[in-house]
Amino acid sequence: MIIDCDIHVYPNAACPLEPFIPARFREAISFRQNSGPSHGYANPFGVDRRDLEAATPADVARLHLDPLGITYGVLQPQPGYAVGLIHAIDVASALAQAANDWQIATYLEKDPRFLGSVCLNMADPRAAAAEIRRVGAHPRMVQTITCGEGLHLFGHRSHDPVYEACCELGLPFAVHPGTEGSLHSSTPVGRPSSYFEWHNSLPLTYQAHIGSLVAEGTFEKFPELRVVLVEGGVSWLAPLLWRMDKNFKALRSTVPWLKEPPSAYVLRHCRLTTQPVEEPENPEHLLQLYAMLQAERTLCFSTDFPHWDFDDPRRAFPSRLPRETKDRILYDNAAELYGLPARAAAEVSA
Amino acid sequence: MIIDCDIHVYPNAACPLEPFIPARFREAISFRQNSGPSHGYANPFGVDRRDLEAATPADVARLHLDPLGITYGVLQPQPGYAVGLIHAIDVASALAQAANDWQIATYLEKDPRFLGSVCLNMADPRAAAAEIRRVGAHPRMVQTITCGEGLHLFGHRSHDPVYEACCELGLPFAVHPGTEGSLHSSTPVGRPSSYFEWHNSLPLTYQAHIGSLVAEGTFEKFPELRVVLVEGGVSWLAPLLWRMDKNFKALRSTVPWLKEPPSAYVLRHCRLTTQPVEEPENPEHLLQLYAMLQAERTLCFSTDFPHWDFDDPRRAFPSRLPRETKDRILYDNAAELYGLPARAAAEVSA
Repeated sequence: MIIDCDIHVYPNAACPLEPFIPARFREAISFRQNSGPSHGYANPFGVDRRDLEAATPADVARLHLDPLGITYGVLQPQPGYAVGLIHAIDVASALAQAANDWQIATYLEKDPRFLGSVCLNMADPRAAAAEIRRVGAHPRMVQTITCGEGLHLFGHRSHDPVYEACCELGLPFAVHPGTEGSLHSSTPVGRPSSYFEWHNSLPLTYQAHIGSLVAEGTFEKFPELRVVLVEGGVSWLAPLLWRMDKNFKALRSTVPWLKEPPSAYVLRHCRLTTQPVEEPENPEHLLQLYAMLQAERTLCFSTDFPHWDFDDPRRAFPSRLPRETKDRILYDNAAELYGLPARAAAEVSA
Repeated sequence: MIIDCDIHVYPNAACPLEPFIPARFREAISFRQNSGPSHGYANPFGVDRRDLEAATPADVARLHLDPLGITYGVLQPQPGYAVGLIHAIDVASALAQAANDWQIATYLEKDPRFLGSVCLNMADPRAAAAEIRRVGAHPRMVQTITCGEGLHLFGHRSHDPVYEACCELGLPFAVHPGTEGSLHSSTPVGRPSSYFEWHNSLPLTYQAHIGSLVAEGTFEKFPELRVVLVEGGVSWLAPLLWRMDKNFKALRSTVPWLKEPPSAYVLRHCRLTTQPVEEPENPEHLLQLYAMLQAERTLCFSTDFPHWDFDDPRRAFPSRLPRETKDRILYDNAAELYGLPARAAAEVSA
């Protein structure tokens, strides 16, 4: 029983995006009015499995879901989750809409194992909220998705319309990295000088977003909100919680809207996907970190199919991880997060 | 036997800075030409012990070194370490020079327990290198110091003249936080909205600098260079090393100047001071983290006297930390870093 929380899918000649683009924006996009800033860091080897450039839903099922026995796979469509960086704001919203309709018609309605992510244009939070209400009630749309970069940290109140809509529809708000360094520098002191350095720095963005969501009181304003941090590693979470909880003891009067220690909010409201999971030389260290960050409730398994740093569920866990924790990471945590059938029920129907 | 690696000292009426400012810059400074951008985050309770505004070296000795039995205390003079942010570049270099001469005359030559930090204007690396050569040979100047912000990440080659001078004089290059958010945003996605959130985010800067120093090959270019990261917490180091080492396996051909895994460089070249040490609810977790980041070689004790989040050496360690590790953190690691007498010799002379 596996839920894979990070499967990338792409339009291509076999399953094109164009028919789903609202008619009045097709010309703008054909004239490249869908561009935005780029960070300019490139993996010289590419990031995708080379046999999958023209993959169809049937290919993804055959090459990924079937052999690994994946019960559900949550899609992260590209383009789609990063449209918020496009300069032309209405074009960005139109592309989000296209990515969502494409996803439903091409994937969700073809194989019940595929679950969708509502792509959002975070540069226009009211448009993003309207898009959530337009497609978010589809029975297999299980979350929203945006990239980790944006105009503001995610605790900023400009995003509140999005969180209202997420709570209304019962959809977690998920974030995916990869655009860091496009609008801002990807570090607090300017730009890395290599893809290697840039990739190493990606967890900084998530640490900043969690700090913002906690300190701004987002989880007090939206007690039903759930946040999913995809593909940013997991181990940095424990030190961050400790630092925030320590500072909260001395500084809580400066953030009087917070009623609980920061870690309480994060452990209740935030979930992290595992890939690329840290691989310390001593596997006991990862087990210890899992205990520190309460992996049995905070982590959800992901593979990042079909990307270069794919994690195989048969090899992604320390061998001494208790079976119950492993099962919660592989299935139960995501099932609870997304309102999917519990293990027992799913096993009966399978 | 204790070396305190982070003691803040300030000029005041009893020990003024003015006499040490080069004559031709005194007028500029009297007309406030020593200003720079400010991040604008303020601890509403102040950051200093309120009884120490007019502290003299004798006061610092009486109130801090004596009662805690501190063998050596490394000074972080303010102003001084953050001059690199001052708009007027020559004024900044003049103030660095003044802070260094003030430190020598006021502290280092008054009490042999005080050790100095050569303040650097990192906005002018050649001037900074000249300043290292001017005062760095003073027998009780043990390192250089600058703030964590700057025009570039510290792996950027524009800083190489500074590292050359550090290696020539045998001085570690130390960094102190507190200015983050002045030149750049203090996170990769913009500015926090409270002092609490800002303070929580300070370790991001150090994670970025370590990533930069490693990825740029700074430690290959300067095999003698040692870097000291002061007051930024310690626990985030282990997850960062794991991520860098994992990525290095796949991407080493993109950074062909690196001959060893990232963790090997960091563990050999970087030292972190302990305050404000993380305080997880379960003290075993800190013990485990100490093992992961090889605390017995990487950590050096500090108090941050006289600041609000001061760590007391009698309470800063988990009770089950092995005595030998505790001794290394309290004394030996810093003694080796700064070329101070080894424990046995120091105990005999004490």
